[in-house]
Amino acid sequence: MEQKKRILTGDRTTGKLHLGHYVGSLQNRVKLQDQYDTFILLADIQALTTHFENPALIRSSIYDVAIDNLSVGLDPEKATIVQQSQITSIAELTEIYSLLVTVNTLRHNPTIKTEAAAYGYDDLTIGFLGYPVSQTADITFCGANLVPVGEDQRPHLELARKIVRRFNDLYGETLTEPEILLSDCPRLAGLDGNAKMGKSLGNAIYLSDDAATVEQKVRGALTDKNRITAHDPGDPDVCVVSRYHQTFDRDEYDEICASCRAGSIGCVACKKKLAAALNTLLDPFREKRAYYEAHMDEVRQIIQAGSDKANRVGNETMRRVKDAMQISL
Amino acid sequence: MEQKKRILTGDRTTGKLHLGHYVGSLQNRVKLQDQYDTFILLADIQALTTHFENPALIRSSIYDVAIDNLSVGLDPEKATIVQQSQITSIAELTEIYSLLVTVNTLRHNPTIKTEAAAYGYDDLTIGFLGYPVSQTADITFCGANLVPVGEDQRPHLELARKIVRRFNDLYGETLTEPEILLSDCPRLAGLDGNAKMGKSLGNAIYLSDDAATVEQKVRGALTDKNRITAHDPGDPDVCVVSRYHQTFDRDEYDEICASCRAGSIGCVACKKKLAAALNTLLDPFREKRAYYEAHMDEVRQIIQAGSDKANRVGNETMRRVKDAMQISL
Repeated sequence: MEQKKRILTGDRTTGKLHLGHYVGSLQNRVKLQDQYDTFILLADIQALTTHFENPALIRSSIYDVAIDNLSVGLDPEKATIVQQSQITSIAELTEIYSLLVTVNTLRHNPTIKTEAAAYGYDDLTIGFLGYPVSQTADITFCGANLVPVGEDQRPHLELARKIVRRFNDLYGETLTEPEILLSDCPRLAGLDGNAKMGKSLGNAIYLSDDAATVEQKVRGALTDKNRITAHDPGDPDVCVVSRYHQTFDRDEYDEICASCRAGSIGCVACKKKLAAALNTLLDPFREKRAYYEAHMDEVRQIIQAGSDKANRVGNETMRRVKDAMQISL
Repeated sequence: MEQKKRILTGDRTTGKLHLGHYVGSLQNRVKLQDQYDTFILLADIQALTTHFENPALIRSSIYDVAIDNLSVGLDPEKATIVQQSQITSIAELTEIYSLLVTVNTLRHNPTIKTEAAAYGYDDLTIGFLGYPVSQTADITFCGANLVPVGEDQRPHLELARKIVRRFNDLYGETLTEPEILLSDCPRLAGLDGNAKMGKSLGNAIYLSDDAATVEQKVRGALTDKNRITAHDPGDPDVCVVSRYHQTFDRDEYDEICASCRAGSIGCVACKKKLAAALNTLLDPFREKRAYYEAHMDEVRQIIQAGSDKANRVGNETMRRVKDAMQISL
């Protein structure tokens, strides 16, 4: 029997996950778990690089993000859910890879630059500047073959590949060079029309929102501003609700667009349809969520078991790494 | 019974130790082990920050440095000898402290600047730039109260204290703030008159040199260049051999200086006396060394036992650190 290839993916634990995460990553992740040996990282240390002053948020998010993943269908029998800070080999590999990467390489990394600017940082912490090095440790501690990421994360994966090759050149073939599993998942716009749905932007529908909250949020979504009455013809191309129909209500999308352009469906009715479609998607997730929220100890055990397994895998990696570097005792 | 205070000290494993190390640190360390609970780090990860391309040197140096320490009288019953790369909590703390220290803080650190210049680095690796952060992890994983260092290391210890205070401010009183135990040990000049005896300078007498090698090296030591014959009066103030007499042959020093100035002792005889004094110092070390070199497995076990103990202590620290940061599972 051929062994399944391993993928490494995960989420920063800086808040609950929303529909943008679902469309951009979780949906795909659920499919991949059948085909690949999946490791999902609850990235609390990476979360701390930007939120070290808010440990309470990190704390609650570890459980929120784990339950978000479980609720959409990640199966702990198939996917290994891992709390990053529990994995000593990630810290050890980060320290070792730090020997092989220069400050300027990271300072000139376009993704780091963009993110630092977005956070308004001018003097970066070592932890923030070095997070792509830590990400390389995330990927390699478990020997991941594939990393499902979007195009914007390509520079980080290229750095990871470079670090692995550098290590293997210096100390002999030891580490698995990861490959990108490019996901072409669409980016979901925010309810306010912002190109990105974001926790900090106040424009998100959370996977944990109840049906009434979804209805209420959809009611406030941006539509064609030029449409005054329900009988005016609308322009679906400038309407967030239309884009959501395209993503979450594919079957009805063409008809809804036509009705909008004809002025035969009003925004209120159109939004009701969308809220219904979203709640149809979310209802089964809510059922799973209710189960896990009533069994928090089981969630803790899932994270514990996943982290224990990850530590076994990671410690085995460290044994080989230290042998290669001749620092084994 | 009052508990002994703990000190943390150690050596980079980039080669065998020499008389400069003995005078500047080991001699003091042997005295301190009775008064303090002593942790001695074989700093192989820190050695890799400058020598990552030479793993074979690091490898042999781990054992060389351990035996150097044991041979001068460090007692594994009193002092805990620890291989840095084996201690997972050091890597974990390094990653956590990296959240609290900015790149510019390290770039402006005078010791880092001097050392980077000495190595000819312009674009530093993250590992090199961050080694004072890693050193803070070395000091704090075991809750060291005191760190015996020279004045030149004060900026690093001040940084360590600052990181500890920052952590305790953010997450509550958790870490022990270390204090400097300023050692006023003289710096030993090299045989060639260079202000520093150094491995890379070719001007060192190693603790592992045999008697004949010591004699030969002392014969080549720098003396007063203006002294042509043994009957010319010499100037001990410009003579390395005289300085060594002062350090290693205190009782005879005044008489030797007087004889030199009077031209009644020649350089050859003076050097013979010095070599004899050095070999008197080194002979008991050689005896211990011979024992350990014939029992390498015991050395390995000493490092293993020390590292195991350090891991127990460090894991307990990590438990408290993760509790404070609310990232315990």
